[in-house]
Parts: sequence; C-alpha cells; structure tokens
Amino acid sequence: MGRIAVVGIGPGAIDAMTYDARKALDESDVIIGYQAYTALIRDHYPDKEIVDGQMRRERERCEECLKRAKEGKNVALICSGDAGVYGMASPMLEVAAREGFQDVTIVPGVTAALSGAAVLGAPLATDFCVISLSDLLTPWEVIEKRLLAAADGDFPIALYNPSSHKRAGYLKRACEILLKKLPDDRRCGYVRNIGREGTEMKLCTLAELSDASVDMFVTVFIGSSRTYEAGGRLITPRGYEIQ
Amino acid sequence: MGRIAVVGIGPGAIDAMTYDARKALDESDVIIGYQAYTALIRDHYPDKEIVDGQMRRERERCEECLKRAKEGKNVALICSGDAGVYGMASPMLEVAAREGFQDVTIVPGVTAALSGAAVLGAPLATDFCVISLSDLLTPWEVIEKRLLAAADGDFPIALYNPSSHKRAGYLKRACEILLKKLPDDRRCGYVRNIGREGTEMKLCTLAELSDASVDMFVTVFIGSSRTYEAGGRLITPRGYEIQ
Repeated sequence: MGRIAVVGIGPGAIDAMTYDARKALDESDVIIGYQAYTALIRDHYPDKEIVDGQMRRERERCEECLKRAKEGKNVALICSGDAGVYGMASPMLEVAAREGFQDVTIVPGVTAALSGAAVLGAPLATDFCVISLSDLLTPWEVIEKRLLAAADGDFPIALYNPSSHKRAGYLKRACEILLKKLPDDRRCGYVRNIGREGTEMKLCTLAELSDASVDMFVTVFIGSSRTYEAGGRLITPRGYEIQ
Repeated sequence: MGRIAVVGIGPGAIDAMTYDARKALDESDVIIGYQAYTALIRDHYPDKEIVDGQMRRERERCEECLKRAKEGKNVALICSGDAGVYGMASPMLEVAAREGFQDVTIVPGVTAALSGAAVLGAPLATDFCVISLSDLLTPWEVIEKRLLAAADGDFPIALYNPSSHKRAGYLKRACEILLKKLPDDRRCGYVRNIGREGTEMKLCTLAELSDASVDMFVTVFIGSSRTYEAGGRLITPRGYEIQ
C-alpha cells in the first residue's frame, strides 16, 4: 500500500514552497493535480508521472489518488497555496475515510492571505478572517452573513475568488454589503498574480474597491478600523504603541 | 544602505520553511529575532552574526534592524510562523515608515492556523477566522466581540495563545462566550508543539475544550456547523457533496 500526501505548493513560484512540500513531491511516484497547478511544477520533475486533473473534478482526482495508493504508489496531490484552505485536504480525507484508508498526510503551504498580505505590507497582523466570494461551494446567503459578521468583529478580511467571468460584479456586491457597516474610506488593497510573474499591488479605499477591476488571479484585503497606509504599504498595528 | 527582510520561518523545523525564507537567511549579514526563534535556526548558521532579542522588546528589535541596515548590512528579522500574522512585519514597517526607510521585504511563512490544521485534518477548508486570546495586544472586550462575531458567521476558528502562566483560564472564558451561540457538541481539536518534536493532537467537543489543559505551545481549532470527525481527523467539507 502506498501513501498519499496532500501538498500545498504556495502561490506559484517553486521557491515559495516549503522544504517539506518539495520533499513530498520528490518522494512521490506520481503527482496529481488540477492542470494549472501541475503546470507550475512539471519542469522540475521531467521524469516523474504527472496526472493533470480537470477543473471541478475534485472527487475524481481524490479517487485516482486512492486507486494509485492502493496499487502501491506514493501519491502527491498538489494544491496551490495551502493544502487545507480551499484546497484538496478536505475532499481527500473525506474520500479516504469512507474507504478506511488512513495513510494521508497533509503538507501545509503559504495561502494567498499570507503571500498577498506580504506584498501589501502587514494588513493581517492580528486577528483576521478569510472569506471566498465564490458561490460555487458556499451559498451566497452564507457569504453575506460572513461578510457582515467579519465587519461586526472589526476583523481585517482577505477575500478570495473576488471575481470570475461567471461571477463579474461579486466584489461590488460584497463591498456594498460591507459598506452598510464600514466607512467609505476604510483602507483596502489588492494583489494580482501573487508570487508569479507580473505581481501587481494597489492600495485603495473600500469605496474605490467597489469599482476595482479584479479577476480570479486577484486576492483582496480589507483593513480593520486600525489599518492605515504608510510608506506605500498597508499596515494593521499589532496593538501596542510603536513610538 | 542594506536591506531588511522580515522572514516567517514556519512552525519550527527547518524544513517547514520556504525556499524563499531560507534564501533570505542565507543572503543576510545578520539575523535578528526573539531568542526562542533564533534558537531554531542557530545550528544552521554557525558563522553568521545572530542577535537574540528579548520578549516584548519588539520596538528595540526593529530599531536594531534599521540601525544595521543603515550601516550597510542586509538584515533578516525572523518570526515563527508567518511574518505578518502576529509577527514582526507590522512593527518593522511602522518603524521603517517613520524614518522613510523603504527597503523592507516581507517573506511569508506557514502560520500555526495552517500547520495545526494540517495535523488535525482539514478543519479550515473553507472560510475561517484567526483570533488570539492574548490580551497583551488586544483588549479583552475586542477579543470577546470577535469570538461572538466568528460564531455568528459560522466560521471555523483557529485560536492562538489560548493560555500562558499569566493567562490561565482564558480558553475556558473563550469557550463560555462561544457556548452562548454554539452547541456543546461542536467539533473541536487542538495541537501541541506543531512541527516540533513531540507534536500531539486531540479531538474533542466545545464543552470538553473548555476544560482542556493547554499552554502557550497549543493552537486550538473550533469547527463550523459543518465540521465533523472521520478517520480520526477533523474535516470541514469544502461545500460540494463527495459521494
């Protein structure tokens, strides 16, 4: 019986991966993942079997992993960012648990909330929330409830999946919901192509964010009441006074 | 003029670091950090100057970094976990901005929410919140407000700093607040010594968590309404049905 590692490869560049993640790929017999992610590591493993998965076929991918592991192969199932956060750890563990397969290791990685925050400065320096605007997996009512709760808690927020061609206008909707609770001039920022070629960042207010042009390669950050801009960076103070 | 990199080294083991983090340490002339973190990397840099910082002397550490950079040194300021999340990115950027020093890079790392979740399974598979129970940096009223908001939003929650010798009983207080909104049998778990020798995990209910014995080396996870236990792991489904 082989084993399965669900591996978060970070934002994209090979050096944004942890040594543990790289080791899990090195030690695998086969690497399985959504094709946009296998493309990121293919050149580094010219001699390894790599299986490209299709979008939304997550269950198929997990079953393929299980089948290969049962054939005695060590399998690495890769995800961008972290393995857990909107990643494959959850469906893989669900599929494995149903068949009583135990040997699944989760190898964490740097999720876009952290890598995007690092580009902007330190917007998530204290407590924070992560919310995806994709209603493919979560009903919009729940997303709306979470946005309002995050505003009530004065959390800095990282928004994933702010838009796609099927979900144009979702960021505007989210901003309109937040603007019921938060001021127009709340400090925000967003980052495109984190950790890949052509990384771009922009700082703005919440009112301006509402009209920002974003796509699926953008991660959005909304500050707390204490977040401010200094030296071109977005900063949420840790709490004590820096004099 | 030298440059400053604020580097998240991950949970502790050298292989939990990213290649980018390791590169930032390799390329530095001096490594500065709280002594518990410099201890983690010292053996790997026998020939490098390492400056041990004292607890709570964050501002001093940032000023030392700036002084060294102005003397022409490349400085790596290290944090455990991520550089931003409860890390030194925020105070360093504040100190640098006040003196007009621009050359500060933030190198993200795997924060305990991600590395701890990986040990437990996939509790943070969708939207989530991170909240610290330390009232050294955040007033308890704000922490309480955030706990209630997180429960209202049905977020899975990662709790940092659940206890210390000065703050015994804080986890119990937090659980009592959450139990106003959440059921006794809400699935929870906690992990001690993530990514270090002696990693231990435990799954429990929210009622049981209230009496759990935790210390400053523990990270606590509270599930959402959808979180369940299977195969000995804590799983929050991603949203679609795995059949």
